[in-house]
Amino acid sequence: MKRNIRIGIVGYGNLGQGVEIELSKQKDMKLVSIFTRRNPKNIKTINEQTKVLSIKEINNYQNDIDVMVLCGSSKEDLRKQTPDFSKHFNTVDSFDIHEEIENHFIKVNEVAKRYGHISIISVGWDPGIFSLHRLLGEAFFPKGEIYTLWGPGVSQGHSNALKKIPSVKHGVQYTIPSENYIKKLRKGNKIIYSKTKGHYRICYVVLEKGANARETAQKIKNMPHYFAPYSTEVYFISEEDFLKNHQGKSHGGYVFALGEEQDVYEFSLTLKSNPRFTAAVLLAYARAAWRLAQEGKSGARTIYDISPKYLHPECSKGIRKRLL
Amino acid sequence: MKRNIRIGIVGYGNLGQGVEIELSKQKDMKLVSIFTRRNPKNIKTINEQTKVLSIKEINNYQNDIDVMVLCGSSKEDLRKQTPDFSKHFNTVDSFDIHEEIENHFIKVNEVAKRYGHISIISVGWDPGIFSLHRLLGEAFFPKGEIYTLWGPGVSQGHSNALKKIPSVKHGVQYTIPSENYIKKLRKGNKIIYSKTKGHYRICYVVLEKGANARETAQKIKNMPHYFAPYSTEVYFISEEDFLKNHQGKSHGGYVFALGEEQDVYEFSLTLKSNPRFTAAVLLAYARAAWRLAQEGKSGARTIYDISPKYLHPECSKGIRKRLL
Repeated sequence: MKRNIRIGIVGYGNLGQGVEIELSKQKDMKLVSIFTRRNPKNIKTINEQTKVLSIKEINNYQNDIDVMVLCGSSKEDLRKQTPDFSKHFNTVDSFDIHEEIENHFIKVNEVAKRYGHISIISVGWDPGIFSLHRLLGEAFFPKGEIYTLWGPGVSQGHSNALKKIPSVKHGVQYTIPSENYIKKLRKGNKIIYSKTKGHYRICYVVLEKGANARETAQKIKNMPHYFAPYSTEVYFISEEDFLKNHQGKSHGGYVFALGEEQDVYEFSLTLKSNPRFTAAVLLAYARAAWRLAQEGKSGARTIYDISPKYLHPECSKGIRKRLL
Repeated sequence: MKRNIRIGIVGYGNLGQGVEIELSKQKDMKLVSIFTRRNPKNIKTINEQTKVLSIKEINNYQNDIDVMVLCGSSKEDLRKQTPDFSKHFNTVDSFDIHEEIENHFIKVNEVAKRYGHISIISVGWDPGIFSLHRLLGEAFFPKGEIYTLWGPGVSQGHSNALKKIPSVKHGVQYTIPSENYIKKLRKGNKIIYSKTKGHYRICYVVLEKGANARETAQKIKNMPHYFAPYSTEVYFISEEDFLKNHQGKSHGGYVFALGEEQDVYEFSLTLKSNPRFTAAVLLAYARAAWRLAQEGKSGARTIYDISPKYLHPECSKGIRKRLL
């Protein structure tokens, strides 16, 4: 019998916690340890048994971990961590700064090749599963159109933008895709897509004591890039309401591919927790990374390079018989 | 510059015609010829320029065709044709008798390996793209549930069953998936799935002169396997109505994957023409077959073995930059 795939987690924020939860559902995987920059003693894991170590110790675990799941932020961590850790480990990351992906790929590929590891980058739902659908849509409908819509769900970036306004104590922003777009696309009707017309934004804000609601709303609605180009609604709520009802991390979205004869190819996700689903996808690709490494392959990969069979725990014959 | 992929079509029914149409949209492909069992002179192609040859001549074209797209029926043709033609050509087929796929795979694999060709089998939307989603759903939600629903659309098998009743002159059967199931699944609620409760069947029938409508309806509704286990509606219409309004080949369906935390992963197809979309998928996989053959690979493959990058005409760097 094959032994379980030994997984390490680097970084223990929302995504790292998601990986811990999702890993407990996978029968062919085993969590070796979480690695953190913080003091391991201060980390409270979801499963009490989970081992937590300082990231400084990570290189002592080269023989104990098959794939390292990198759960840091693209901007602060992954730019450096993925090339660094690909020296000593097979890795998966969810690097999501679209315009930097190619550069990240080149850097990671060079290191992973040199040190004989597999590193699958930009894994998750967008970039990730949504990207897969954009590719399939174009491959099947070479004269068709592809549309991506995001939401309904919490945008972390926009929520953070709200919090930068001094009069905002707490704030959360929900991105809502245009129902009108979705209706038209489901009927196979092409649309003139614009990201700003295809989405609107709803903000729930807790004001600092004594702050002016009207002025704050104006500041939000006029914020360039984030809110000004969109139809934006701002609602002021109590701190109690905020803490009770707006702590979710739900997200989702749609990819539509329309053929020139009005064929409709639709994919959608409705996620209770954005980081938990990203974690689930990362783990399926961690399985692929390990299998490719076992075949002696090395270098960087994206979801476009991975055959579906590598993602599923069952053998090829089993999935052919049961799922094809 | 790379030359175009040279495609041959075996069989010129609805699927073969679909391949002819879809191929004209692909910039990196060229149709060499259709091969038919009929007299080539009696074949009227969609594009007048299309060459039609007798299937007896097929082996003279080994140096002129990169991938042969096999468009025969699974039952009558592919069982024998795919192993036969994989001796001399790379092939793709849409073999769809689920319980025989593994046996077909083994036979085709043996020949394709021995003769150094790639043969991708069971390509289309189900088996095919739907199978891909069932696999991804299971990989991401190991404790979740996967559901497949078919329709709304024309079922060829059920339409043929109608025509076997002597009092039926013409008949068409539409498979309709349960709206109730779809509503529940979209909300993330698991259902107790049953194929017979998840679908109902609508038949439009033209009676033979003097035939008894009531008796015919009873015969249809009581037909074992096809209609008896389902809720079935039968409508009698005029021949004129039938020929005018019921010649379509629309089809579609849904794959839902539900996570244990009520995450919803939904894929659906709404196709104006079932054979044309199957043809579009076949061509994307024909591209993959050719690329794998160029890499020196051989043997049988299914969609589970094919990396997405092989399906798209653009290079890996291009698709990473534009679609990831």
